Amino acid sequence: MSNLELVDTGRCCAPLTGLALDESEAAELAGVFKALADPVRLRLLNLIASASGGEACVCDLTGAFDLTAPTISHHLKVLRQAGVITGERRGTWVYYRAVPESLTRLAGLFTPPVPTPA
Amino acid sequence: MSNLELVDTGRCCAPLTGLALDESEAAELAGVFKALADPVRLRLLNLIASASGGEACVCDLTGAFDLTAPTISHHLKVLRQAGVITGERRGTWVYYRAVPESLTRLAGLFTPPVPTPA
Repeated sequence: MSNLELVDTGRCCAPLTGLALDESEAAELAGVFKALADPVRLRLLNLIASASGGEACVCDLTGAFDLTAPTISHHLKVLRQAGVITGERRGTWVYYRAVPESLTRLAGLFTPPVPTPA
Repeated sequence: MSNLELVDTGRCCAPLTGLALDESEAAELAGVFKALADPVRLRLLNLIASASGGEACVCDLTGAFDLTAPTISHHLKVLRQAGVITGERRGTWVYYRAVPESLTRLAGLFTPPVPTPA
């Protein structure tokens, strides 16, 4: 699988109701949605994005699921490759944060544009 | 595949940064993202959501892709089952519309909650 990254294309928040998506942008966005198309990954992103202080230790995430640590690590890697979270190792553990620009971009995608006055 | 529908759970716009997603909600949302995890389906949703008058005839959608009509129909069915578009047959053609409540729900999912004053 390609190593997807959310990049600033200069039209970060073009909604689906607005400008036509070109093929390359559609392919890149499809990759982000593929990363989100898994219940465990959605719950991980939810736990990370709602964590007190804005970050979650992998040591706290693993306990929330009846899954092995390597499985959780795999899902975290997919989310990281999709650009929706970042991870930073500090000592024994990796700490994860949501990437606000990515979430804002996704929100903007589904938000109808505000009509401009005539 | 199950016939996914976006239903009003009474917490349509709970963002990922807010309340904990439960397993059933995460599974249902993952199904919606799976429907969106395809470049052709994203471009179809984009064409439908941005169509003049709010609806697009399948006869206009097919021409935008180098794909057969049955393939386009399959993708439209997946989007319809995910609850993001509706289709209505009138005469020879089916006309598609985006479901605003579904798009608003998805936008809300990625929108950080507005802090409430203390």
